[in-house]
Amino acid sequence: MGAVRRLVLDTLKPHTPNIIEFAKQISELPGVDSVNISIYEIDRKVENAKITIEGPDIKYSSVESLIRELGGTIHSIDEAVAGKSIIDDASTLQD
Amino acid sequence: MGAVRRLVLDTLKPHTPNIIEFAKQISELPGVDSVNISIYEIDRKVENAKITIEGPDIKYSSVESLIRELGGTIHSIDEAVAGKSIIDDASTLQD
Amino acid sequence: MGAVRRLVLDTLKPHTPNIIEFAKQISELPGVDSVNISIYEIDRKVENAKITIEGPDIKYSSVESLIRELGGTIHSIDEAVAGKSIIDDASTLQD
Amino acid sequence: MGAVRRLVLDTLKPHTPNIIEFAKQISELPGVDSVNISIYEIDRKVENAKITIEGPDIKYSSVESLIRELGGTIHSIDEAVAGKSIIDDASTLQD
Amino acid sequence: MGAVRRLVLDTLKPHTPNIIEFAKQISELPGVDSVNISIYEIDRKVENAKITIEGPDIKYSSVESLIRELGGTIHSIDEAVAGKSIIDDASTLQD
Amino acid sequence: MGAVRRLVLDTLKPHTPNIIEFAKQISELPGVDSVNISIYEIDRKVENAKITIEGPDIKYSSVESLIRELGGTIHSIDEAVAGKSIIDDASTLQD
Amino acid sequence: MGAVRRLVLDTLKPHTPNIIEFAKQISELPGVDSVNISIYEIDRKVENAKITIEGPDIKYSSVESLIRELGGTIHSIDEAVAGKSIIDDASTLQD
Repeated sequence: MGAVRRLVLDTLKPHTPNIIEFAKQISELPGVDSVNISIYEIDRKVENAKITIEGPDIKYSSVESLIRELGGTIHSIDEAVAGKSIIDDASTLQD
Repeated sequence: MGAVRRLVLDTLKPHTPNIIEFAKQISELPGVDSVNISIYEIDRKVENAKITIEGPDIKYSSVESLIRELGGTIHSIDEAVAGKSIIDDASTLQD
Repeated sequence: MGAVRRLVLDTLKPHTPNIIEFAKQISELPGVDSVNISIYEIDRKVENAKITIEGPDIKYSSVESLIRELGGTIHSIDEAVAGKSIIDDASTLQD
Repeated sequence: MGAVRRLVLDTLKPHTPNIIEFAKQISELPGVDSVNISIYEIDRKVENAKITIEGPDIKYSSVESLIRELGGTIHSIDEAVAGKSIIDDASTLQD
Repeated sequence: MGAVRRLVLDTLKPHTPNIIEFAKQISELPGVDSVNISIYEIDRKVENAKITIEGPDIKYSSVESLIRELGGTIHSIDEAVAGKSIIDDASTLQD
Repeated sequence: MGAVRRLVLDTLKPHTPNIIEFAKQISELPGVDSVNISIYEIDRKVENAKITIEGPDIKYSSVESLIRELGGTIHSIDEAVAGKSIIDDASTLQD
Repeated sequence: MGAVRRLVLDTLKPHTPNIIEFAKQISELPGVDSVNISIYEIDRKVENAKITIEGPDIKYSSVESLIRELGGTIHSIDEAVAGKSIIDDASTLQD
């Protein structure tokens, strides 16, 4: 209970190491099962990457440290899911 | 019967504590299984967060107290589901 | 046979009692399993709520009485499903 | 073989009896399992309703008689499905 | 092998016999399981109907004869599926 | 391993033989299970057809020969899938 | 753990060898199960291909070498998935 099951992070990173290296290393953190990294903008020096992390007990502090070590910065935490299972946000008539 | 199974709340919160902390704490409330928090607007001082809560018997008063304790305010309750199971709103020709 | 399985109602209600209270009370009516209430417009004094009700044998008259007791009014019945099971309207080339 | 499994009818009806009554009565016809009635336009005196009927052996003539008895008129038959099972129209590159 | 499993036909037909009669009769042809007929345009004298036919071994010549006998004409064959099972066209980046 | 599992071809063909004949004959090639042919443009003399072929071990050379024998030409190969199973292209933030 | 499960590559390639040959050869690399190649732009001399690769343990360096040997160039790595299973990027309110 209270376990973090999914995080979606908006990040900025240099081209090297590439997103394959980022995904591999994040997926090796304790409490993490799988990582999807998608590029949504590429500049000359940096790229914007959306990182989706799923696992039984994600520790944000270790994710944050690792991304910083690899040269990236977290712009914002766009989504967080905690509890017994992963649920999406329910689409409402207000969306 | 009469149990609240899903709530969707439109909230305003300061940046700290972050949505991970919010999601973890709400998911620990009795009657709550899972929590999804998604940011849809970020300001210099505050952020707008859509909170989706699912569980067998959600108590709104304890959700409300906890969000207030954490520094957030509930703008509106956008969706409420009660009864034997969670159902979405049926899409109609009037939507 | 002939049982009403789903109703979608367009309603107007005061802010109090809130939609959680509405959903809980409607879900307790005999013949009702689950209730989804979604707000699609909020005014200073009232709010427009779309109410989706599912169950094995929904009695419209008791739904109507309860909503009136709670201070709401039914604008229109947008969808009704009756029979052995719930079916959606089939999407056609005329839609 | 040759059994009608689904009909979609575009109808015009007075406000009374309401679509709940229509759905209940149509769902009681022999060969009918379930009925979905959705309103897509409301006028001062009449409303346009899309009626979707599913069942193992729908008899159009009895559906037509019943709708007429209840004060409604069938504008057009928008879709008909016959045979061993219900299939949707296949979406093609010409649609 | 080589069996025709699905056909989508664009047809023009008089209002009588209606699409229910068309669907029933086509569904009784050997090698046909199910038929969906959807109207996409109605004129004063004729209507355009999209006919989707599925079955283990559809014979186009008998479908064509039957439609002609019933007063309809086939404008075009919009889709044909043959082989071991029904597959849709794969959506590509060129669509 | 290395088996071709799906091909999507953009082709030009005369009206005769029709796409039913094309689909039947291609579906009879060794290594082919099912064929979907959809028309997306019709001219006075020719028609553009999108051909989707699925099977355990599709031989492009025999598909190409057969289409040429039947009077068609392959404009382009829009999609090719090889390996243990059929996968779609993953939708990314760059699409 | 740390295994690369999916890669999406944006590539430029000459017309020959065609994407069928590319897909077959990439699908034979160790750690690769299936490959989808979709063309999204065709020029006189070259074509842009989106390559989706899935497998239990994809080695990017061997994918890169093979594509180069076949005359192609990788423009960018658009998506990388690593860990226990393939996950898509979660759609958020920020997308």
